[in-house]
Amino acid sequence: MNRLQNADYIIHADYVLTMDNDLTVMRNGALAILENKIVYIGSSDEIEKKYSSENIIKGKNTAAIPGLINTHTHAAMVYFRGMADDLPLKEWLEEHIWPAESKWLSPEFVSDATELACLEMLKAGITTYNDMYFFEDAASNAAKKIGMRAVLGAGIVDFPTIAGNSADEYLSKAERFIKEWQGDDLIVPCIAPHSAYACSPETLKKVRELADKYNVMIHTHLSETQWEVEEIKGKYGLTPVEHLKKTGILDKNIIAAHCVWVDEKDIGAIAKYKVGVSHCIESNLKLSSGIAPVPEMLKAGVKVSLGTDGAASNNDLNILSEMSTAAKVHKAVSNDPTVLDAKKALLMATKWGADALGLGGITGSLEKGKAADIAIMNLNKPHLTPLYDIYSHIVYSARPSDVETVFVNGKLVVDNERLSTADEDEITAKAREWRCKIR
Amino acid sequence: MNRLQNADYIIHADYVLTMDNDLTVMRNGALAILENKIVYIGSSDEIEKKYSSENIIKGKNTAAIPGLINTHTHAAMVYFRGMADDLPLKEWLEEHIWPAESKWLSPEFVSDATELACLEMLKAGITTYNDMYFFEDAASNAAKKIGMRAVLGAGIVDFPTIAGNSADEYLSKAERFIKEWQGDDLIVPCIAPHSAYACSPETLKKVRELADKYNVMIHTHLSETQWEVEEIKGKYGLTPVEHLKKTGILDKNIIAAHCVWVDEKDIGAIAKYKVGVSHCIESNLKLSSGIAPVPEMLKAGVKVSLGTDGAASNNDLNILSEMSTAAKVHKAVSNDPTVLDAKKALLMATKWGADALGLGGITGSLEKGKAADIAIMNLNKPHLTPLYDIYSHIVYSARPSDVETVFVNGKLVVDNERLSTADEDEITAKAREWRCKIR
Repeated sequence: MNRLQNADYIIHADYVLTMDNDLTVMRNGALAILENKIVYIGSSDEIEKKYSSENIIKGKNTAAIPGLINTHTHAAMVYFRGMADDLPLKEWLEEHIWPAESKWLSPEFVSDATELACLEMLKAGITTYNDMYFFEDAASNAAKKIGMRAVLGAGIVDFPTIAGNSADEYLSKAERFIKEWQGDDLIVPCIAPHSAYACSPETLKKVRELADKYNVMIHTHLSETQWEVEEIKGKYGLTPVEHLKKTGILDKNIIAAHCVWVDEKDIGAIAKYKVGVSHCIESNLKLSSGIAPVPEMLKAGVKVSLGTDGAASNNDLNILSEMSTAAKVHKAVSNDPTVLDAKKALLMATKWGADALGLGGITGSLEKGKAADIAIMNLNKPHLTPLYDIYSHIVYSARPSDVETVFVNGKLVVDNERLSTADEDEITAKAREWRCKIR
Repeated sequence: MNRLQNADYIIHADYVLTMDNDLTVMRNGALAILENKIVYIGSSDEIEKKYSSENIIKGKNTAAIPGLINTHTHAAMVYFRGMADDLPLKEWLEEHIWPAESKWLSPEFVSDATELACLEMLKAGITTYNDMYFFEDAASNAAKKIGMRAVLGAGIVDFPTIAGNSADEYLSKAERFIKEWQGDDLIVPCIAPHSAYACSPETLKKVRELADKYNVMIHTHLSETQWEVEEIKGKYGLTPVEHLKKTGILDKNIIAAHCVWVDEKDIGAIAKYKVGVSHCIESNLKLSSGIAPVPEMLKAGVKVSLGTDGAASNNDLNILSEMSTAAKVHKAVSNDPTVLDAKKALLMATKWGADALGLGGITGSLEKGKAADIAIMNLNKPHLTPLYDIYSHIVYSARPSDVETVFVNGKLVVDNERLSTADEDEITAKAREWRCKIR
């Protein structure tokens, strides 16, 4: 007699896009979740012979994909969404964003705003995000409450801000933050030196020591603008990539956002040191920063992933849209429609994103033994009909509103398009209250 | 005593974006609809003193905008969505699209597929579209049944297709089509010579005569690819723009799709002859066609509007996304974040689109006396919170799923996110049946 094993959830789906090494796509596939893990993945028919569960998610007209990975954001900046647009970066930062930040940032602000950002991301199928901001304790608690996987790094700069006075103060806060959160099941602390222009070489060296001491990721901005490259070249006679290499920052366990203005030699170094790159195409376009040489980086073997950047610059937290925009823009820029196809775009948003964050063993693909970080899309929509190629649909046609169900670490966090871990209306109401205060 | 006038509908909205000449935005605004027209536009308080209606649409957390205008598509190609992606244009066309068209096109195909396209467009807030395809009688009937405003042009080419054998046959069919539909309240017939490379100068001259005889718009492709420019220069010694000017096509009442490869002289001619331009940024990117010099055209006074192109190349019919992509891409390409701001992007998608189609007197803005073509967005969404600038939200953050209510020509066609003129599930089921036959 065949005894059925118990699962917390059984998920059936017309299409299961595993994003494993063979890019296996299962028709009429199924997954079993026990505690926080995927314990089985196979066909719908088979699973019923092996598992039973009180919670069965049926799969008519659905696709299950790995939860999307947002490898660069400043989540709490969602409260500044649309506050200032269509402006040069310098004016946008100096006249709008920085004054607003120095007036309003607080643990309470970051906590409330991070809840909104997590709500928006989860409803868009994003299960993991990589954050750089201030008051990251507040961000950690908020992300954990809402139920997102998050890599969080307190920003390190050399100048005083509302969150600290000196590099040493930020560094000691970062160390305390790492010690407090390391080992958590959802929150991964990291250390986030802002950039080569906001941190001295001495600060960067201390960052590397701290990262090595605790074996955590470094998260930084790198070669975002032409101005940055000129600034660093003028100061140190090196490109930002070469400069970071010299300070020891550019080594294992680092994710660099943007990498727009990198030359062939820079790309070689990025590939050599296995730097994860977060390509933030929509932010780079909107702020006129430029267009990163993604096809060249991919060709050099760099694991390029996708980031939304903060919603103040972008103006949403939507990796589905970043995939579509990146896949399209690079076709035009390189004059080659084959240069970044739908499969590659989805890899950037899933497996390669997890790899770039050092979380490849945990998330980024649907495989037995990995954490159950899963987004289930409803394909029964006019704009997803008819269906010839599931990758094409997910990358070029799907929208956040198609995300019906989301699991993070085995927990059902979005159920029938609604957040199950907190009250959506309370979160948006709080955002409106803050907005009235801010302006 | 004050007698209240009757209205078919009264709409309240937190924000009414009129897109009139002064870009008036009303807070707590209201509109009254009688028959097919907007008969009143003013404040929520005022309207209750002047109008009564059995149908009142309340406005908590909503924005009313003019129905969006899609100035270039091949609606029925929605049935080929995602059939072939990430390929060079020639291979995509010759090995996938054309074989599928010659095997499957029929009045029944066009009718069923156009219903799906109209469903998708209406649910995305698009109320008017400009179409070029075959079997346009079938398309007209479908658009009219679903309740969309459509400018429809039967394609004119010099070679045999499933829809005809010669230019003269297409022309006589086009004349019959114009006579049959001219004067309809929703359907505007036009004449659609495919391009300078698919039509001889003789054919183009006949097209101009026919257009003048019936005073209808001409809809054509123009300078979409570098190949096209070289082909026409090689054949006629002129750029496609100069060539169309010489044949008489480039004159009043013409809308030209793409205009990617136009030089300064071309832009001068486009401006001089008041050619409406349909900028199809997402299609141009995805097919690696290039990036049209939109800022230069705007500077020259060209009314540039937005088109989705067919869903086979794009892969959806979503003008909200075209706005966002266009506004972002041109900032990066021109290295100027002020070059195409949110207001201008929304003008392209509304008023300028209507102007480009010769429908500026009827639609494209919310003004007394204009047709009631209106999209109402629900702002109570995480990704639209908080709200500082309504234009920013509509252009950079809003999604089709935020469109809750749509009126076309005074008729409620989308009510609470559902089509009210036909059964959505029947339309998508038919699409799935066709898909099984096609592949």
